[in-house]
Amino acid sequence: MRFHHSSFRIGSRGESDVRDLTGPVREAVAASGLRQGLVHLFVSGSTCALTTLEYEPGLVEDLGGALERIAPSDRAYEHGKAWGDDNGRSHIRASLIGPSLTVPLVDGTVALGRWQQIVLVEMDTRPRDREILVQVIGE
Amino acid sequence: MRFHHSSFRIGSRGESDVRDLTGPVREAVAASGLRQGLVHLFVSGSTCALTTLEYEPGLVEDLGGALERIAPSDRAYEHGKAWGDDNGRSHIRASLIGPSLTVPLVDGTVALGRWQQIVLVEMDTRPRDREILVQVIGE
Amino acid sequence: MRFHHSSFRIGSRGESDVRDLTGPVREAVAASGLRQGLVHLFVSGSTCALTTLEYEPGLVEDLGGALERIAPSDRAYEHGKAWGDDNGRSHIRASLIGPSLTVPLVDGTVALGRWQQIVLVEMDTRPRDREILVQVIGE
Repeated sequence: MRFHHSSFRIGSRGESDVRDLTGPVREAVAASGLRQGLVHLFVSGSTCALTTLEYEPGLVEDLGGALERIAPSDRAYEHGKAWGDDNGRSHIRASLIGPSLTVPLVDGTVALGRWQQIVLVEMDTRPRDREILVQVIGE
Repeated sequence: MRFHHSSFRIGSRGESDVRDLTGPVREAVAASGLRQGLVHLFVSGSTCALTTLEYEPGLVEDLGGALERIAPSDRAYEHGKAWGDDNGRSHIRASLIGPSLTVPLVDGTVALGRWQQIVLVEMDTRPRDREILVQVIGE
Repeated sequence: MRFHHSSFRIGSRGESDVRDLTGPVREAVAASGLRQGLVHLFVSGSTCALTTLEYEPGLVEDLGGALERIAPSDRAYEHGKAWGDDNGRSHIRASLIGPSLTVPLVDGTVALGRWQQIVLVEMDTRPRDREILVQVIGE
């Protein structure tokens, strides 16, 4: 059993932007030399989330619509009243989905479904530069 | 430290069906021979999710009701407009809950609460055959 | 590669109470002596969840508001009809967020963002005593 740590950065275009991380994650796994185990992904920061999605423009728009229903943008958030920030909803949306994703590594491949991509969902109200931490554990 | 990979399949009856995976997961853990560590579960595919739930018929129905509020079935999804699929809401619900769950392995037992089961939540609009990947890491 | 298991308990004040676990998690990691790898956290029980949040009173209140929209308290739940329990919504909210969180361990530090804390979100309708299981895997 070995352990390999790496990270990469990706820019987002602001609220409800979705970025496909599958390519960079596959590169990080290849660099690890490991072929069986787990790949753990984490985004630092409290206004961003990781999950999987069939990455196509329709679903990206649909996901933004669902996040708007869960934590609407036209609502007054206590976070904003206290700190003057306009991104109370961003924090809430990010907490509900979560900053972390773990995927299996089988025979050197990240074992995703055919229409399943690893994605970052930007929740903040402005473009951000995000760091993704990648931990590969296995053999 | 060792690593053990296995998988099993389970059928679902379609939208908002919930299947109890606790038994098959315990079997996979027993087959690994490991007694301390982590059990990682992953469902391949972008219209299905894993979580824990007290598995009883009332909560299964309640969970379906909540998913209907988050991503209603009577709404037009961009995914459907672009691809003709009727399961835009399925993708969105699956992304919000996520395809992955990790549970602790303590003294040979999956350390769940007394009323806590590992469940698959089918989001797709039709019955599906699902593959669950199980990675056990530990001692 | 080594593996270290520990646990700690924390009390909650009831529904939508949020507790900052970052301090106890850092202590558990320090006790493990491990410096690179993964920290996995799990809360036993089906009416409680783990995630990350910027831990400040405004966002704690905002998170409670979002949970109320997702699974309202003024709704009749099948769980309650069947079992007489008043916490059907608690189970649903807990399942949607999930009982598990994994964070990276880099150079002896839990690699959170600057405004990002590890939190327990109590979903039950009464104060509870919660056990958090901590598994550290790494070098």
